[in-house]
Amino acid sequence: MTMAFNKTIEQIKAAISPKSWTEDENTITPHLVDRRGKLQGRAPFMAMPNSSLEAQKIIQICAENETAFAPQGGNTGLVGGSTAGLNTDEILISMKRMNAIAEVDAAGFTLTAEAGAILATVQDAAQSHDRLFPLSLASQGSCTVGGIISTNAGGIHVMRYGTTRHLVLGLEAVMPNGQLWNGLSPLVKDNTGYDLKSLLVGAEGTLGLVTKATLKLFPRPKAMVTAWLCAKSIHHVMDCFSAARESLGGAINAYEIMTDTGLSFAVNHMPQCRAPLSGNYPWHILLEVSGDSDSRIMNQLEILFSDLLERDIIQDGTIAQSGKASADLWSLREALSEAQISEGVSVKHDISLPVGKLADFVHTVLPELNKKFPGIRPVPFGHAGDGNLHFNLSQPKAGDKKAFLKAAPLLSAYIYEMVNKYGGSFSAEHGIGTIKKSELVSYKDKAALAAMRAIKKALDPENISNPGRVLDI
Amino acid sequence: MTMAFNKTIEQIKAAISPKSWTEDENTITPHLVDRRGKLQGRAPFMAMPNSSLEAQKIIQICAENETAFAPQGGNTGLVGGSTAGLNTDEILISMKRMNAIAEVDAAGFTLTAEAGAILATVQDAAQSHDRLFPLSLASQGSCTVGGIISTNAGGIHVMRYGTTRHLVLGLEAVMPNGQLWNGLSPLVKDNTGYDLKSLLVGAEGTLGLVTKATLKLFPRPKAMVTAWLCAKSIHHVMDCFSAARESLGGAINAYEIMTDTGLSFAVNHMPQCRAPLSGNYPWHILLEVSGDSDSRIMNQLEILFSDLLERDIIQDGTIAQSGKASADLWSLREALSEAQISEGVSVKHDISLPVGKLADFVHTVLPELNKKFPGIRPVPFGHAGDGNLHFNLSQPKAGDKKAFLKAAPLLSAYIYEMVNKYGGSFSAEHGIGTIKKSELVSYKDKAALAAMRAIKKALDPENISNPGRVLDI
Repeated sequence: MTMAFNKTIEQIKAAISPKSWTEDENTITPHLVDRRGKLQGRAPFMAMPNSSLEAQKIIQICAENETAFAPQGGNTGLVGGSTAGLNTDEILISMKRMNAIAEVDAAGFTLTAEAGAILATVQDAAQSHDRLFPLSLASQGSCTVGGIISTNAGGIHVMRYGTTRHLVLGLEAVMPNGQLWNGLSPLVKDNTGYDLKSLLVGAEGTLGLVTKATLKLFPRPKAMVTAWLCAKSIHHVMDCFSAARESLGGAINAYEIMTDTGLSFAVNHMPQCRAPLSGNYPWHILLEVSGDSDSRIMNQLEILFSDLLERDIIQDGTIAQSGKASADLWSLREALSEAQISEGVSVKHDISLPVGKLADFVHTVLPELNKKFPGIRPVPFGHAGDGNLHFNLSQPKAGDKKAFLKAAPLLSAYIYEMVNKYGGSFSAEHGIGTIKKSELVSYKDKAALAAMRAIKKALDPENISNPGRVLDI
Repeated sequence: MTMAFNKTIEQIKAAISPKSWTEDENTITPHLVDRRGKLQGRAPFMAMPNSSLEAQKIIQICAENETAFAPQGGNTGLVGGSTAGLNTDEILISMKRMNAIAEVDAAGFTLTAEAGAILATVQDAAQSHDRLFPLSLASQGSCTVGGIISTNAGGIHVMRYGTTRHLVLGLEAVMPNGQLWNGLSPLVKDNTGYDLKSLLVGAEGTLGLVTKATLKLFPRPKAMVTAWLCAKSIHHVMDCFSAARESLGGAINAYEIMTDTGLSFAVNHMPQCRAPLSGNYPWHILLEVSGDSDSRIMNQLEILFSDLLERDIIQDGTIAQSGKASADLWSLREALSEAQISEGVSVKHDISLPVGKLADFVHTVLPELNKKFPGIRPVPFGHAGDGNLHFNLSQPKAGDKKAFLKAAPLLSAYIYEMVNKYGGSFSAEHGIGTIKKSELVSYKDKAALAAMRAIKKALDPENISNPGRVLDI
């Protein structure tokens, strides 16, 4: 630790409440390991501001001393964006104490929350006012408003409601120079200058610290129906999607897919999971539709399914007849990541593709992977409705873990090359963090990269706001 | 004209096709007056690139010589953003020759167009593929893709589909340094760095020249119904909105309002306009709802209207029973701006308010305006569903035009003060351009202004990209 770093810590201690910081190792330690357990951070000091004003004081002191800070929400990120002290001394700023829902304006369909509020708490607050906050993802029980904003989180309902960027109306943030930007606003139309809000959403903490947000709420759907379908090939899966979209219009909430391998992982390892249909089919689809009444949706789905069966696009299908049956279908989808752990080591990719090219991509890549590593078990699954696949690869059954992990970089490079060739993204929803910076340099448009660097240098000239994430300056 | 400016012109002439530039005064002149006829620009030379490559060459030459350029789409802006040469020598770049619809991907629900494509052409192209491009505004017959993007255009369907920023999936643009950024992409999820797209949307040409865009299409609603309602006060108008939203959920496409004064302007001056209801009511509402079937929507509306009548929220209402009847209702709304001209001079404000505060704002401001200028005829109208009002003020009947125009700045200052007090925006959809820069400095958050300036300087250090618009550097 440098003298400047120690000076920063002492100044922060003097500036904020004694409850708003800690040097206790036991308290800090759980904040230093990333969700996947692959990165080990370090930090002798953790600030836990209880207000925007305290957050501002902390960053002002950091700015004066040119000391780096690392914001942290629920620490559920998957790319090392919130692991403090990996490369340099950093003031870890945990937002967990700023977790209030400041206001729910049911009539105005908005909710204002502090950055440390848990996503599930936001969903519940909206629901208790008969409103919907539609963002939904695996870590919703622990991820925070600041985290979903800084990573532009996606999840299962993006095709209907958009990513986090579409759900944020206003922001409050401390800029890297220590200025507090009050951009909290419920305004739908406001053309007074550049869209700073969208810039901070997805900036992964590198352009300042988000402290509060005004979020957009929606009417709660009166009815929601879940169904499960099976298909012979990925092309049939995507043909089914086109047909469903054509027939149901904007009523589709989620269109999730998985392979038979993925389904068998879930069924074999998770006690709560049972196969929804008896036959063996290579591809499975989970479809969620909302509307005015269950019976009306079911009726529409039955018409759609008989058409799809007749046209040989799907092989079988079932509509959940109860909330329990619906939850059972979702549990298959949600159990997949955890179930995969029991099948040995795996390599993960969070990619997206133009929806119209997803089938061709999968059809081309799967056999090539098997050539490159015989016995490999690809487990692509995810949000096919918005082109986003979690393209995970499991090692061959009872195979050599080390050999598989050794081959992993080449397999990943092949996948990213193909993603690029098909016009897709190598990071659909997880972001860049510390672990995907080299892919960013390889695949991002050069003019865009230059503009990003210029913006980072302009807003954070001393590179103190979550440095080493997204861009190396 | 400086030598550098002349040099730039000669270099551009040598670099692009002879059809891609002109010095003919008759050709250039119509491009130099703004839509409202209030600003007179000047430009001895106009570039009309036929490709992104030519656009890039032009800007590379401008960048080398530190010569300013002024992009222009349909020249329908209302804040002087596209009037060339007001303060400095500028290369006028008309995008009108880059007007192709490059691709409609109906299955993928996207459309890619060049920047000079007319909005109505985009709407038609979508419709011919049984898709909807929902952005709709008065100037759609002449405004362009590049223009709606650079101004983040809004219009009548924002409450359902969002502003232009929500409808752009990908962009191609020439950055002020001459680099061509290829950000064209149909991807819904792509978390690979800062959101440059949202930054260029609404930047009014100050951060580069938009050359192409991939836009988001939607399913065409199977049915659409228009209705007209009358209410006793602005509070009833907004109570009606809450009730309609509660009852119809996300099915409301548009919720437009006007006063009896506005309605009488339209009826008195526009031959196609007739009052839709016989009684006299101070406030009028145009409601557009879409869904699966006309009969189903009408049924829902009838239930809603009888509830609203019973609760004394509305006084009367009528549902258009045909496409013609629906068009008649819309013609009242659309005729308002033009009809106002026949009533003498007026002062216009394009404001937005939090939806929950709109009624209080109007209720407070209207009587004060009458105190400040007795006889004044305020004609607020517009998109109440998203909080956006065109808060126009007409002179007293047969009053002194000069006296009214002399008082205008004070009346505007009062309105903007009150908008600020109620948490609103002084420019909801028209932008800043050259004429609202002082309001931006007065009302914009200081940290946001500092960040905007830093971004402008970072991306356009020589201040050549549409200089003097949005920010004075």
